[in-house]
Amino acid sequence: MRSLAADLGELARIGADPAGGVSRFAWTESLERANRWFVERLEEVELAPELDTAGNVIGRWEAGDGKAVLVGSHLDTVRRGGRFDGALGVLSALEAVRILKREGVELRRPLWLVSFNDEEGARFHTALLGSKAFTGDLDLGYWELAGVPQAMAASGRSFDRLHEATAVDRVAAFLELHIEQGPVLESRGIDLGIVTSVVGLLGFRARFRGEANHAGTTPMGGRRDALLGAARATAALRDEARKQDGMTANVGQIRVEPGGFNIIPGLAEFSIDVRSQSLEGHRRLESWVPELLTEIARDEGLEVELEETQRVTPVPLDEELATVLERAAGAEGASTLRMASGAGHDAMVLARNVPTGLLFVPSRGGISHSPEEYTAPEHCELGARVLARALGELLTQSKETA
Amino acid sequence: MRSLAADLGELARIGADPAGGVSRFAWTESLERANRWFVERLEEVELAPELDTAGNVIGRWEAGDGKAVLVGSHLDTVRRGGRFDGALGVLSALEAVRILKREGVELRRPLWLVSFNDEEGARFHTALLGSKAFTGDLDLGYWELAGVPQAMAASGRSFDRLHEATAVDRVAAFLELHIEQGPVLESRGIDLGIVTSVVGLLGFRARFRGEANHAGTTPMGGRRDALLGAARATAALRDEARKQDGMTANVGQIRVEPGGFNIIPGLAEFSIDVRSQSLEGHRRLESWVPELLTEIARDEGLEVELEETQRVTPVPLDEELATVLERAAGAEGASTLRMASGAGHDAMVLARNVPTGLLFVPSRGGISHSPEEYTAPEHCELGARVLARALGELLTQSKETA
Repeated sequence: MRSLAADLGELARIGADPAGGVSRFAWTESLERANRWFVERLEEVELAPELDTAGNVIGRWEAGDGKAVLVGSHLDTVRRGGRFDGALGVLSALEAVRILKREGVELRRPLWLVSFNDEEGARFHTALLGSKAFTGDLDLGYWELAGVPQAMAASGRSFDRLHEATAVDRVAAFLELHIEQGPVLESRGIDLGIVTSVVGLLGFRARFRGEANHAGTTPMGGRRDALLGAARATAALRDEARKQDGMTANVGQIRVEPGGFNIIPGLAEFSIDVRSQSLEGHRRLESWVPELLTEIARDEGLEVELEETQRVTPVPLDEELATVLERAAGAEGASTLRMASGAGHDAMVLARNVPTGLLFVPSRGGISHSPEEYTAPEHCELGARVLARALGELLTQSKETA
Repeated sequence: MRSLAADLGELARIGADPAGGVSRFAWTESLERANRWFVERLEEVELAPELDTAGNVIGRWEAGDGKAVLVGSHLDTVRRGGRFDGALGVLSALEAVRILKREGVELRRPLWLVSFNDEEGARFHTALLGSKAFTGDLDLGYWELAGVPQAMAASGRSFDRLHEATAVDRVAAFLELHIEQGPVLESRGIDLGIVTSVVGLLGFRARFRGEANHAGTTPMGGRRDALLGAARATAALRDEARKQDGMTANVGQIRVEPGGFNIIPGLAEFSIDVRSQSLEGHRRLESWVPELLTEIARDEGLEVELEETQRVTPVPLDEELATVLERAAGAEGASTLRMASGAGHDAMVLARNVPTGLLFVPSRGGISHSPEEYTAPEHCELGARVLARALGELLTQSKETA
């Protein structure tokens, strides 16, 4: 009999990167092979497989009537990614179907198992393309520019038919299991995370302009040092994030010009990534970041340019589904923690359309997007059992309470 | 009749860079042509020219007896440098000789006019090679590694004969005029700077190592952000330099790894340039910089590596010669300011061997090493007259008081 552990092992060999890790990108042969392998698994459990026009793979257990409960995640990866990110969400859902089938559960509504295409967007920076097509959140202009039409044509698909994948109106709820990709569960010794929201993100490219000058002959008082502006901003962003609950801040990129050992930097360019769990926090950051930089610029005699490069508003997840997941976890004897997700997932896209629940399993060392990514087999299996229990509750209750 | 302004203009055409500015490097045709042009000027004023084995050009006004008073600077430039850095020191000394000749001054000791080779070291990072050879401060191992022997051979000279250029034992004192390369004189409306010391320099390459992690999923409290270490160091260095008289600090280079927008920097590498006017300040910085970085590393949970890349101890200049220069400036009706030099000069090398005086003229906007470098004609001429007066005093007084 098939097991979750065996599935994980088999899948990890499809698109195994010679340099280590797994590389499976949208519209490429390695993901196609993973999809074909997944279709065989769907057929084994008698789910009717469909490859939709957006490259999503959907296995349908049509039963009862009304809208379906959708469960799943994605099979594509980043370059040299791990074997759990996405894959565990799809395979634990498959395992949950096997449990429900084994237990002979009779469904009162359809169950759809999904592998969304291109969640990572590793190839064209088109993250979440599959779930966006599924929910009708089409970003056709950007996708066209990114080169998706050519890639789709080369793999025998048509960009013009992407909109046919939109099917969210036939879905009542979405459940996703995912690795945490952070260290919280492991470090606190908790089995499962019940996600209450996916954090919002504001991304900026910031530039301070001062005056390049000789570092030995220019008096300290007369300097307009662009790097000092960036240094102060970096420290202030961190200090603020430490004070504000649910906020994070990161400066991950920085460069200076002219870049001479003995030359005061005349330009410092750096990235800012600030995140917030709440809409209020998100809105506060929108004004706080520009204010901070303007204040530092004034103080240091610099000019400042700030360009917004990314914007994702925080997405609250469904409270009722969180309770269902918690109850299922409790029944399996698992400890849980309500937490926010600091990274984006397909659940974020679905949650804008239907009630959505997201379940986290621990990531060893908080590591993801790396061959080092790891979740213990007992946590993978626990996740699948909790998913099965939650699905069982949702699929066997009368429609009115769903 | 030749004038200083005409000399400056003619010289600037030798090695004029098509991209703007002047490029004259050691052991290349452009500096050779400048040297030949300078030899013609020496012959016009009846100074006996010599090209020594280190590529220095020396014009000798042999008179009286005893050791010579040496005056001059350098004719080589940085890439696309200005027309005043070095050149003005040589040409104002030439102009001073013309003044002394015109006035019929009778010397009681020899006057040597020098253009030191390779002061900038733009080609091989062999700054001050000419003056070091002249004083016997030979760094043969480094110069050999840098490729000097091949360059000398290609221009018909022998690396093995560099030591024959050492002649400082025949020199009683050195005077140099140079552009300030800083904004102090101009911004304070002062005509001339009397330099009391050349600052010392400690250069470091510093590395903080933390842990690269996902910027959204890693709690603020659990981060080991290498850039935060560098940001704190940058700010602390500046704050300290503002407090300490005669100290400057600069972080001119910085880079982080892995350098992703949403990845906490696991490595930050940056340069530190700290300078001090006094030996005490220099010694204090030697221990203070490592202590500061160690403290920040401990505080931020980082590892620190610190590598010394440059070391120049502060060089006090001669008090008596400063008084001579001040007196000469006063006689010309010029305002003066005693100040330190934040940049290195040939005078720094000479001062370790013989009493040395250094005179600054203003640099517009403090700009140097740039085609924008500029000193007003009246300040150039004032400098030459002050040099002539100071030389007149030194060369006509009895040897006992020199």
